[in-house]
Amino acid sequence: MNGAMMTICLMLLPALIVAENPCCSMPCQNTGVCMREGDGYSCDCTRTGYYGQNCDIPEFWTSIKVALKPSKKTTHHLLTNYKWLWNIVNRIPFLSNFIMRAVYKIRSATVDSPPVYHTGHDYTSWDTYADRSYYTRALPPVPPGCPTPMGTAGRKELPSPEYIAETFLARRRFIPDRRRTNVLFNFMAQHFTHQFFKTDFKKGAGRTWGDHGVDLSHIYGETVERQHQLRAFTDGKLKFQRVGGEVYPPSLADAPVHMIYPPYVPAEKRFAIGHEFFGLLPGLFVYSTVWLREHNRVCDVMKELHPDWDDERLFQTARLILTGETINIIINEYVQHLSGYNFDLFWDPELLFKDQFQYQNRIFVEFNHLYHWHPLMPDQFHVNGTTYGMKDYLFNSDLVFRHGFGATVDAMSRQIAGQIGPKNIGPVNLKVAVETIKHERNLRMQGLNQYRKRFGIPPYKTFLELTGGDAEMAAQLEEAYGDVDAVELYVGLMLEQPAPGSVTSETIIELGGPFSVKGLLSNPLCSPQWWRPSTFGGEAGFRLVKTATLRDLFCRNMDGPCGLVTFAVPEDVTPTGLPQEGEGGAAQDKQTSQNDADLVPVNGVLSSQDKRQPKEGDASQDTKTSQNDADLVPVNGVLSSQDKHQPKEGDASQDKQTSQNDADLVPVNGVLSSQDKHQPKEEDASQDGFQDAKTSNEVKPQPEETASEKPTAKNEEAPKNEVSPKNGASQKKDFQSGSPKNGSPSKNDVPKNGGPSKNDVPKNGSPSKNDVPKNGAPSKNDLPTAFPKNGAAPRTYVNRTSCKQCDRIEL
Amino acid sequence: MNGAMMTICLMLLPALIVAENPCCSMPCQNTGVCMREGDGYSCDCTRTGYYGQNCDIPEFWTSIKVALKPSKKTTHHLLTNYKWLWNIVNRIPFLSNFIMRAVYKIRSATVDSPPVYHTGHDYTSWDTYADRSYYTRALPPVPPGCPTPMGTAGRKELPSPEYIAETFLARRRFIPDRRRTNVLFNFMAQHFTHQFFKTDFKKGAGRTWGDHGVDLSHIYGETVERQHQLRAFTDGKLKFQRVGGEVYPPSLADAPVHMIYPPYVPAEKRFAIGHEFFGLLPGLFVYSTVWLREHNRVCDVMKELHPDWDDERLFQTARLILTGETINIIINEYVQHLSGYNFDLFWDPELLFKDQFQYQNRIFVEFNHLYHWHPLMPDQFHVNGTTYGMKDYLFNSDLVFRHGFGATVDAMSRQIAGQIGPKNIGPVNLKVAVETIKHERNLRMQGLNQYRKRFGIPPYKTFLELTGGDAEMAAQLEEAYGDVDAVELYVGLMLEQPAPGSVTSETIIELGGPFSVKGLLSNPLCSPQWWRPSTFGGEAGFRLVKTATLRDLFCRNMDGPCGLVTFAVPEDVTPTGLPQEGEGGAAQDKQTSQNDADLVPVNGVLSSQDKRQPKEGDASQDTKTSQNDADLVPVNGVLSSQDKHQPKEGDASQDKQTSQNDADLVPVNGVLSSQDKHQPKEEDASQDGFQDAKTSNEVKPQPEETASEKPTAKNEEAPKNEVSPKNGASQKKDFQSGSPKNGSPSKNDVPKNGGPSKNDVPKNGSPSKNDVPKNGAPSKNDLPTAFPKNGAAPRTYVNRTSCKQCDRIEL
Repeated sequence: MNGAMMTICLMLLPALIVAENPCCSMPCQNTGVCMREGDGYSCDCTRTGYYGQNCDIPEFWTSIKVALKPSKKTTHHLLTNYKWLWNIVNRIPFLSNFIMRAVYKIRSATVDSPPVYHTGHDYTSWDTYADRSYYTRALPPVPPGCPTPMGTAGRKELPSPEYIAETFLARRRFIPDRRRTNVLFNFMAQHFTHQFFKTDFKKGAGRTWGDHGVDLSHIYGETVERQHQLRAFTDGKLKFQRVGGEVYPPSLADAPVHMIYPPYVPAEKRFAIGHEFFGLLPGLFVYSTVWLREHNRVCDVMKELHPDWDDERLFQTARLILTGETINIIINEYVQHLSGYNFDLFWDPELLFKDQFQYQNRIFVEFNHLYHWHPLMPDQFHVNGTTYGMKDYLFNSDLVFRHGFGATVDAMSRQIAGQIGPKNIGPVNLKVAVETIKHERNLRMQGLNQYRKRFGIPPYKTFLELTGGDAEMAAQLEEAYGDVDAVELYVGLMLEQPAPGSVTSETIIELGGPFSVKGLLSNPLCSPQWWRPSTFGGEAGFRLVKTATLRDLFCRNMDGPCGLVTFAVPEDVTPTGLPQEGEGGAAQDKQTSQNDADLVPVNGVLSSQDKRQPKEGDASQDTKTSQNDADLVPVNGVLSSQDKHQPKEGDASQDKQTSQNDADLVPVNGVLSSQDKHQPKEEDASQDGFQDAKTSNEVKPQPEETASEKPTAKNEEAPKNEVSPKNGASQKKDFQSGSPKNGSPSKNDVPKNGGPSKNDVPKNGSPSKNDVPKNGAPSKNDLPTAFPKNGAAPRTYVNRTSCKQCDRIEL
Repeated sequence: MNGAMMTICLMLLPALIVAENPCCSMPCQNTGVCMREGDGYSCDCTRTGYYGQNCDIPEFWTSIKVALKPSKKTTHHLLTNYKWLWNIVNRIPFLSNFIMRAVYKIRSATVDSPPVYHTGHDYTSWDTYADRSYYTRALPPVPPGCPTPMGTAGRKELPSPEYIAETFLARRRFIPDRRRTNVLFNFMAQHFTHQFFKTDFKKGAGRTWGDHGVDLSHIYGETVERQHQLRAFTDGKLKFQRVGGEVYPPSLADAPVHMIYPPYVPAEKRFAIGHEFFGLLPGLFVYSTVWLREHNRVCDVMKELHPDWDDERLFQTARLILTGETINIIINEYVQHLSGYNFDLFWDPELLFKDQFQYQNRIFVEFNHLYHWHPLMPDQFHVNGTTYGMKDYLFNSDLVFRHGFGATVDAMSRQIAGQIGPKNIGPVNLKVAVETIKHERNLRMQGLNQYRKRFGIPPYKTFLELTGGDAEMAAQLEEAYGDVDAVELYVGLMLEQPAPGSVTSETIIELGGPFSVKGLLSNPLCSPQWWRPSTFGGEAGFRLVKTATLRDLFCRNMDGPCGLVTFAVPEDVTPTGLPQEGEGGAAQDKQTSQNDADLVPVNGVLSSQDKRQPKEGDASQDTKTSQNDADLVPVNGVLSSQDKHQPKEGDASQDKQTSQNDADLVPVNGVLSSQDKHQPKEEDASQDGFQDAKTSNEVKPQPEETASEKPTAKNEEAPKNEVSPKNGASQKKDFQSGSPKNGSPSKNDVPKNGGPSKNDVPKNGSPSKNDVPKNGAPSKNDLPTAFPKNGAAPRTYVNRTSCKQCDRIEL
């Protein structure tokens, strides 16, 4: 190399160095937009409230606001404590309206609407607004070609997703939720969110086939074609069939839509549901059933009031009413439970009518990722004294017919779900976690700390702070990432401990709250134009919307008396599903499955190669499950060969020993192949009408063979005289492919007179005081903290137009 | 019949009578929603500001507001008069901001957003919000099964659409617009609105294949597939070709997208444009060309500023800049001209940032119908001394090459368009009018008076009031409809006289204004989130958006000097296209066509059977056109046989005599059949390079044969030394299928330094004082009333952030 060349090289060197995008270090604060300009950058601080090179100097009014605003932590502490204070506030409409409105406004204002970024471009483009097949995003991606994957922070290579999943996420032993969140909640979350979390994996992790909001497409189908297949076209109703005298979703033969079922499921056990995925788990089937019944019930109410209406109008109006009911239940009960607030949340769209608010919504990819609450999912399901491993739960809608709809719901209300936090994802869902991490990298999503700043919470300074004091995990995390600013979003969210009093962590609350509030309140139903009686077919329909409760939803649509219907196991009820069940009826549960660590991906992308064979001698009892359910599975066979960061000896030896036995993989997004055939064991089949039917291969099941096998619950906690149906009929597997014309079950529910005041009184299962479960269920006057309102169905409305609560999922 | 049966019949009789829907009489006022309840009805008055059985009693604050609010007529009078006052107001930012903001707010508030009704249901449904394939509507339809088609008003049968078209709409003699609106405006209207008026006739008159707003899909294509075909994928640019040294849209061979061309158009004369329809008329081709050039020019500007940007980012950012430029020009100049206001309209999104405003938009079917401004379209086109009948204008993009781009634009600015009002729709467009009436009936649209009430203007009490004093037409109308409340929307809109000082009628202004303002200001560009420099690639791009003018758009993208570029013929320029042209250069125009009544449907649905053969001896001069162009055509052969109301003898004898000769039908929506072949006459072909090329059937035209045939304008009014290109090159038909790499014309336009202050200075055709046309064009200091601002390109911005004017099309 001669001198001239060397000079050229030296001249090029700085050029190569400065070729690094200065935006990689995320210099612009407070949502300022970084734009590269030659070797430098500029920040567009327009309307951020800040100025300066990096949008970091507050304008005058910003500094005042910042000084006065309490921290998110303080606000959360206030809301989750001082119960005496909130008891007063909740009774004073002026105050509670003020607070509720503030929650609506502050939460919504955090979300860009219209969206500024989407997953298709790194910058704002016309498609950001117009192409709804992309998820939007709250932060732009890390610029391409940065020194490290997270910009400039952290190591040049990220730890392998498999290592992360193994070390930080895998369940060692089932950790029950501290706030006694139950399985009925778990499936509400899964059922509700799958109407808008619909990743179109074929197109990419940033694409969606949904329509960005609470549209009840999971009940009515995403397309009008699917909707039409599901409709009876009589009196506005959806098609249904009768099984054991009760109404259930129609068979796939009656409503030919695309559903995901493995080949072994016989034709008559395949159901047509709004979402193709909802035949997967009985918990989803339960919700699909209850909403179908509610739709047809509401149609009857409307038909009585409007005899001149045609099928189409009855259908469309019932859909709007059910949409309203959904939002009301989600805010009043679901988010209320999630948040742990002592302030009674409520839904009143009118509180926003004088404010700036955009009645449009988009689903953010971050919202999807933060909602990966797989730790909630237990490894077993306890129904009426019988325990089902995941393998026997999957696609086993027969379980519902066997135990009866009411008993199944009661059981779901009694079983505790897993705690959202580290080391609590069951083995199969671990694959989803691995995929989620891969998707985030593919989307170049910014790290946890950047998102914390974006949503107004201080970034973590140390790994120890992030892990909530867990020194071992902090050390492992530091080894893996090098810099706390390099910790990825999803990983960080899963590693945080739940916030005090809440189901989820601080970051999930502060990110999820805005997306939730915005998503729920921006529904067109909430707009001043729509929020009026005529939208819902008159005052009666409007009242249905405003007074909906979870308990009413179930109890009005159930034969026989109504058991426990809650989102948390009441404190005076011993939960089922705890890792060590010595007391209560759980120990007596009949085992239907011997491999109990099976879990199911909520939003997964598992391939058929991932199938694992259960071990022969893995017949563990309930009390033994905690030893073998935290196993890890090689994901696509790459776990051992590609892992950059190997877990420490001590961890691995403990965690990996039983890694071959725990999961039946359930491909979710249409990738089910014939190899995935689920072969039930003999002993399962003998007591499972589902398998009987498969063997006999008949379209109509043999009701007499399986009916009344276990008509009453063995579990001591079950309110026998209420959960057990009074007539054996509902336990009978009596499939009747029904049309609304003959034997419509909701005929009885039609109010005799069109007067709106009578419409809401159900025939049975009324949410009156009489229906509070007799054994151990909380009485109205003595609700424990974790269970503030459930069980007492009709709220006493103080003096406001409507509703209660205000989040989609989180607050 | 025995007594019992008779009793039954008598009992049934009242039931049959009351079976009539009480909502047919539209009892609910002030947007109250009528709901049938048994034999009666109820009105939902929620948030109407009124109460009572019919929502007709004002609440206290409503009555105050109503008492204080000036009538729309008064406001219009104020805005279109008192020029001295407005001259002051326009100079005081505080005042003009106040007024502009009031216009934005009041206009937008009239439009339901989110929409309440759509064309798919008679009531609010989920699809109203979610199914964007429907147009929305401002009023629900007339209930089905009413006593009369319009509810309860009027006759049991409506007059035949053909009779209405014949009697009230057909042009007898070209009526020029009083406000000197020109052909450049006419084609701007057509070009601009076709990005969102995209009726999907295959699905129905209420369906759309557009995306409900100003999205520039007419430039970039509705789908990403079309967009990709149109893109060069180099430096963000669109594909183009060079003809005569100038840049034009690419040939269809280079960018294979679906375009509507008749079979006789040779391959090399088929152009690929964003909208499949825009090869139809040279006027549309001119706009397509100038926006293509502007896009590529802006890409060059951005590339210079951001050398690190890839093709995608350059493309996307240029698209956003062009969207902004479009909105700015539409508000500042287009709506300004339409409105006739002496108040200077302007575009400043920030004025709405503190208000309630929905950044979402829908296209209302009423907006589409009121925009059927076919009277604007003249029967002939005068370019540079040559007159083209419609037949020779259709699909004749060669006309632009022949005269040169600049001369064509100059000619369009000089030719006066038709007045929007009765008896001024050319023969071919009459079919569109007939179809529009049919569509309205199909959609059961409410009548003119109901819409007037909905938009805050008093309903007409008499037919005479509606026709503005035309007693004969009032009598005919009364005979046709029986009741002024039964007059249909579109018919009424077309029969009104233009409002004083404005281009359109009062109802068009009061209905169109809200839709326009809402559509323009609700663009995401206008949202607080988007309206900042970084969205547009920095300050330079932001400035391009905020300072765009029509004149700049053309002059910066033109070889050679720039002629007249205006939306109205300046008062000191003699317009071409007047019915009797004795003076000026028009009389010397060379005739290229002998049947001069040809017109083209703007939004039409013409079928191939409708083709009419021009008469042999129909060689009329310019001065004779007024005798034979008002002819009527049988529409689908039903005119004579089915017409319910036959026109009076006197009318018919006069109107029908030449009904066979006046129109070449141009099917617009893909229904072109081979029978529609356009056979040009010999003498046309001899002077038309377009036809030469057809005969020779070569891909490359013979440039020498046709070039420079008429290089300079014969019309005295044409500014010879400016319109005629200085170099013959631009007249040469030198087709070069170009990529941006070789010989890019915009290379010259790239500013030498990235400094934003230089970007806006065009190479030639700068909108500085030097460019005001030398002959007769208005000087900056002496603009006539009808021509307030054009010609003086860069506005002097007082002290506001941006912009000017505030409507989409109308105010």
